[in-house]
Order: sequence, then C-alpha cells, then structure tokens
Amino acid sequence: MSKSIAGPEIERLIQLLGKLPGLGPRSARRAALALVKRKETLLAPLARACTEVNEKVGVCTVCGNVDTVDPCSICRDPRRDESTIVVVEDVSDLWALERAGAMAARYHVLGGVMSPLDGIGPDDLNIRGLIERCRSGRVGEVILAVNATVEGQTTAHYITGEIAGLKADGIDVTVTRLAHGVPVGGELDYLDDGTLAAALKARTRF
Amino acid sequence: MSKSIAGPEIERLIQLLGKLPGLGPRSARRAALALVKRKETLLAPLARACTEVNEKVGVCTVCGNVDTVDPCSICRDPRRDESTIVVVEDVSDLWALERAGAMAARYHVLGGVMSPLDGIGPDDLNIRGLIERCRSGRVGEVILAVNATVEGQTTAHYITGEIAGLKADGIDVTVTRLAHGVPVGGELDYLDDGTLAAALKARTRF
Repeated sequence: MSKSIAGPEIERLIQLLGKLPGLGPRSARRAALALVKRKETLLAPLARACTEVNEKVGVCTVCGNVDTVDPCSICRDPRRDESTIVVVEDVSDLWALERAGAMAARYHVLGGVMSPLDGIGPDDLNIRGLIERCRSGRVGEVILAVNATVEGQTTAHYITGEIAGLKADGIDVTVTRLAHGVPVGGELDYLDDGTLAAALKARTRF
Repeated sequence: MSKSIAGPEIERLIQLLGKLPGLGPRSARRAALALVKRKETLLAPLARACTEVNEKVGVCTVCGNVDTVDPCSICRDPRRDESTIVVVEDVSDLWALERAGAMAARYHVLGGVMSPLDGIGPDDLNIRGLIERCRSGRVGEVILAVNATVEGQTTAHYITGEIAGLKADGIDVTVTRLAHGVPVGGELDYLDDGTLAAALKARTRF
C-alpha cells in the first residue's frame, strides 16, 4: 500500500506477512485482517507461537535439521540406524521423507544445492559436516535424496567424489541415490520422456 | 501432519499459519520453515508485530474500522466530510476505497451482509450503529458501497428502509449506491450481460 490506512502496526504486519512464501501483497492484507478479526483465537496464539519458536528453535549442529534441542531429536533417537545418512537439500525434504515414514535413518541437510550461476559452491553448503560424519567411521551408507535437477545431480556427483576420496584413509562408505521411476499412482501418459526411459531401464521382475 | 516431526513449537506454528486465508497445510509448512530460517529478519519481527497489533489494535466503536485509536483516525480526521458516510461490508472494502483515494468521507463497516441461509439477520450486523449516526442529524448522505451480490443488495434495501423510517422523526438522509458499469480498462467482450445492460441503461453524455 502506498499510504498508511490502518496505522503503522497493521502496515508492518501486512509487510512481514507478505514476505512469507505463497503470500503476495493482496493475500497478506487478507491474512492481516483475518488476524485482527480473530485476536483471541488466532493473533495472540500466533504471537506466542512465533516468540516461542524464535526463542527455542535452532539448527542442529550435527545434521542441519531445525529443532528445540541440539543435537536434534532425530540425531538423538537411538532407534534410528546411525550408520545410514539420508542427504537432503532442505529441511522441507527431511519433513517430506519423515511424513512418508519409509526409513528410520539419520539425516544430513545440505541447506541448498551447488549452483555456479548463483555463485553457490560446495563451501556454501553443509558438505564439510557430512564428510566429517563419514570420517567418524560409524557411517556405512549415504543415501543422496537430492532433487532430480541439474543442480541436485551436480551436488550429488561432488559429494560422491568427496566420499570416494575417504577411501585413501581406509574409510569405505557406500553412496546410493533414490530410484527414478513412475510415481506411485502416476499415469504414464503424463510422464516426461526422461522418467519413462529411467523407469524402463530400471525395470524389475514382476 | 499426522505425527510430530519438528517438535510441538513448530507444529503449533504450522497449524496457526494454516488457519490464515490463502495458506493451506502445505504452504503453512513452507511459511513456517521460511520463518525458522530467517529468525532475525522475519520471525522475530513478525512475533513483535503480532504482539503489538494484538495489544494496540481494536475496533472503532463509531464506524467498525480497525485502528490503534478509538474512535479511529478516519473518524477523528477533521478534513473528512462528516456528513457523508460510506457503508461497506468489511474493513477490506474500506481499505480498497481508501487505496483508490476517491473520497474524503467517513465510513461505516457492517461486518458482513444479511444472509438468511447462513442465519445472519440485520441484528447480527452493525446496522443499528449506522441508524444512530444518522439520527444525530449531522449526516446528509449515506453511500451504500456493498458488494453487488444478492446478499449485498438485500442488505442495501434493508438499510434504505430503515433510513427512510427516520423521516417520521424529521431526519432526511439521502441514500445513494455505487454506479454499475464497465470497469475502467475492462473489455466489453468479457463482461457479463447484467453489467452491460446496467452500463447501457446508465449511459452518460460524451
């Protein structure tokens, strides 16, 4: 808004809400108004939740996950296989894998992918920490669960090279990646050629 | 999310963000993660802004606008024409009219429209307050800027009847409504028949 209509407090709230992903200036105004209208049930709890998360939540120094404890509750969980590390780009990918609940492993959050065009090199990511974890000798397998983009695959290749370099020190870690194929419930007609080719190539016995 | 992944604090934040208009469960997770990642620049300011709005902002007892002062800054503004009241359904409509900056008048926010199907009658809206303002004798014109929906027009008719009833007490207030017509910049081809018919009927000399 070019001029202040509802006072600086609401304007500030609208401005901050507009910085959230998925909210533009218009929906930020709608969200702010919804908050003002529901002060007791929404605004006050949101203020408390934001303050609480701000005070308590931090980044896990081991894996890069966000949690109220450090190391995070996943890194502390004794039921999880310590020898398997799933490498993801972002915490949101970690959450997606946890929702799927497919694997009781540990994680390592890179915090992005290598992207020379954006000036993001390996040193800007949490790769050094991953190599250190491998160096501890307790890691048997690293599963690269990075996105199937050019940047993701470049990062995967770099990490594979770094882990292969550990063999000189007598440390042998298996590096795997997620399978490519037809999404469960997906229709062939809508799939891209690359996925179809990969699914054909990696066909399994029925 | 069916199970807690990132601790109860973040879960609570996701849950509250998901109640905002325009944010579903998925975008609420993305928004929460964006907040956690930008604690200093986004999360802490948002916590402060929410707290501040919660403490300072309230509903104007005169017109129903939201502001940090009561009566609101629009009702206090001596440069605004006290004798003209623009009646709107919601504060967002007030903001839209203020952004347009077309009129330096006062407002009256109904807080909704009459909707028998939803059980919303005239007593559930801020109509009584509007009639009281008219009764003061300082109001010369009431502009009905309600939406051009069936409910909006029903509400407009009801208000018109109530204001007409004031004539018995010697109070004469002119009731007007927004013009119907072609939106500025709009293309005829995309307009509905009702709007075109209204625009033709209300044609003006060129």
